[in-house]
Amino acid sequence: MEYETVDLDEESGSVLILDQTKLPGKAEMIKLRTAKEIWDAIYLLKVRGAPAIGVAAAFGIYVLARRTAQKETDFDSFYNSFKKQKEYLDSARPTAVNLSWALNRMDQVCRQAHAEGKSVAQIVDRLGREAREIKEEDIRVCRAIGENGLSLLKPGDGILTHCNAGQLATCRYGTATAPIYLGQERGYHFHVFADETRPLLQGARLTAYELYSSGVDVTLICDNMSAMVMKNGWVNAVFVGCDRVAANGDTANKIGTSVVATVAKRYGVPFYVCAPTSTIDLDTPAGNEIKIEQRPGREVTEMWYKEPMAPQGIKVFNPAFDVTDHELITAIITEHGIARAPFWKSLAEMKNVTV
Amino acid sequence: MEYETVDLDEESGSVLILDQTKLPGKAEMIKLRTAKEIWDAIYLLKVRGAPAIGVAAAFGIYVLARRTAQKETDFDSFYNSFKKQKEYLDSARPTAVNLSWALNRMDQVCRQAHAEGKSVAQIVDRLGREAREIKEEDIRVCRAIGENGLSLLKPGDGILTHCNAGQLATCRYGTATAPIYLGQERGYHFHVFADETRPLLQGARLTAYELYSSGVDVTLICDNMSAMVMKNGWVNAVFVGCDRVAANGDTANKIGTSVVATVAKRYGVPFYVCAPTSTIDLDTPAGNEIKIEQRPGREVTEMWYKEPMAPQGIKVFNPAFDVTDHELITAIITEHGIARAPFWKSLAEMKNVTV
Repeated sequence: MEYETVDLDEESGSVLILDQTKLPGKAEMIKLRTAKEIWDAIYLLKVRGAPAIGVAAAFGIYVLARRTAQKETDFDSFYNSFKKQKEYLDSARPTAVNLSWALNRMDQVCRQAHAEGKSVAQIVDRLGREAREIKEEDIRVCRAIGENGLSLLKPGDGILTHCNAGQLATCRYGTATAPIYLGQERGYHFHVFADETRPLLQGARLTAYELYSSGVDVTLICDNMSAMVMKNGWVNAVFVGCDRVAANGDTANKIGTSVVATVAKRYGVPFYVCAPTSTIDLDTPAGNEIKIEQRPGREVTEMWYKEPMAPQGIKVFNPAFDVTDHELITAIITEHGIARAPFWKSLAEMKNVTV
Repeated sequence: MEYETVDLDEESGSVLILDQTKLPGKAEMIKLRTAKEIWDAIYLLKVRGAPAIGVAAAFGIYVLARRTAQKETDFDSFYNSFKKQKEYLDSARPTAVNLSWALNRMDQVCRQAHAEGKSVAQIVDRLGREAREIKEEDIRVCRAIGENGLSLLKPGDGILTHCNAGQLATCRYGTATAPIYLGQERGYHFHVFADETRPLLQGARLTAYELYSSGVDVTLICDNMSAMVMKNGWVNAVFVGCDRVAANGDTANKIGTSVVATVAKRYGVPFYVCAPTSTIDLDTPAGNEIKIEQRPGREVTEMWYKEPMAPQGIKVFNPAFDVTDHELITAIITEHGIARAPFWKSLAEMKNVTV
């Protein structure tokens, strides 16, 4: 892997990201220096995936604070700027939980250091450490999910994945792809099938890209080919990410995930959800309480295409996510271990692990 | 429906087709006069679907024979031309069974009429009648499938279909769509979900087009959304066409059909295959003996797109069809009735019906 999804360039005081809107045609690292550049990168999905967005925002507020500190050595003036920049960045994607979570954590560090009597320069140092720590934590969580997932696999296995819960959505390893990358490091020689994932093609554009460029043996398929590859006996396990896991194990993830789970059940292929414990929501008892975002029909009929691919005015149903019933899920893999049925019990235990 | 998929223009001595390569952007009827024009139309998929290709070829060989007869009144010279044109048209799509079937039937009529002492002019008349009869037969078969399918539905039902086994693949009604059109004529107000059907998008480009332009309430979905619409309770029955049905009921059809069948089974939605008896192949005992055509990866990664949608050089698995296990099929609907399990028995009976 020759890129970092999100990185910090201390020398130039900028955030480095791989511009994901250019993939798979071009792998371009871009430097974000100004608040506007950082905001745009998040808003325009140049950086995407909850963990990666959080880290980009943390690095972003840090490089902005560092620049502010060159002019403002008085805390009140400094903090005034800091708050404005924080609110501005936070507005880039209002529904992305990790964005405000990371910014609030940086804010907390700022106020704490001030309360301890630190100077603005010292506060900026602490912000830098915290931002790097957020990134390191993300890597540790993904790596732990990878180790746990890898324990369910053997060399030469065939793996199917849907959408992109990969390195491109995190800082390293990804969630669903973490067992694949760790296996790759250890010479496991997996054969991976990547669902293209209509309508936004994250599988074709992102997952196929990142696995292929890491030297993983990956084959791209259309979403409707999952039954064929499983019937052919080519798949030993399915790994997917998730957006939210309910207390009973029902899992919201990219549209089509529940189709893969249904097909996997029929062909006796284990179906694993990779979930940082932060995505397990014990306050949501079951999947039917998860509201599903509906997106514009033109993503299905026009986006990417040379010309419209359906009659003008056609009705389109375009949900961004679906919910996979817990009974279709073999296990939910977190950074703390592998949760199995009954999930209402194992997930609650998992959430209460003290690290 | 304001178009005919395939028609005959006696006045100008040409075959009229709706150019399907222009859909859904443009509904253009084109005239095919020369052998080259007819060949190209079949080769370039301007007309497609086994029954429609058969009728286009029958009309084609007829209009060519009529023109030949203006110069050649001697049978041997006439038949010499006829045979050459027949072989030429037959080469347009070597694997399309209905193409050679229709041309052989026209050849048979030609030789039979000659044996009865008919003149070349009379032979040409008979060819015209035969070609029109082939079209009428196709319409009768589709209509009968429609009536049988409709008996399984009630007004207001939700129906899901995959790919295009519609009017655009036949001369009228289609196979999988026949119950929908007949219901539409009788005010049944069905709600139809059309799978877009990757990679070639026949559902979006053709099925959505033809149903929408006939005033049917149709909603386009991506293939990976079938579980969600069924889980929501919006689908009372699935209707699909088929390319070949084995003696045990295993059915080869467009890739993704077996995914829909698997999902339908999970949600208790009946899954119906619409099959003219000509597609039931009692010589193939089971689906595992059906060879599946593999197609180029660029259909998945590049076709239709403004730019490539996957990394250059990526492996792609792109089977054109899959086989749906007979145990996932609720019934197989033919022009003679509704076959149910055990299919090895009911299909054999269906094939032996004398009309």
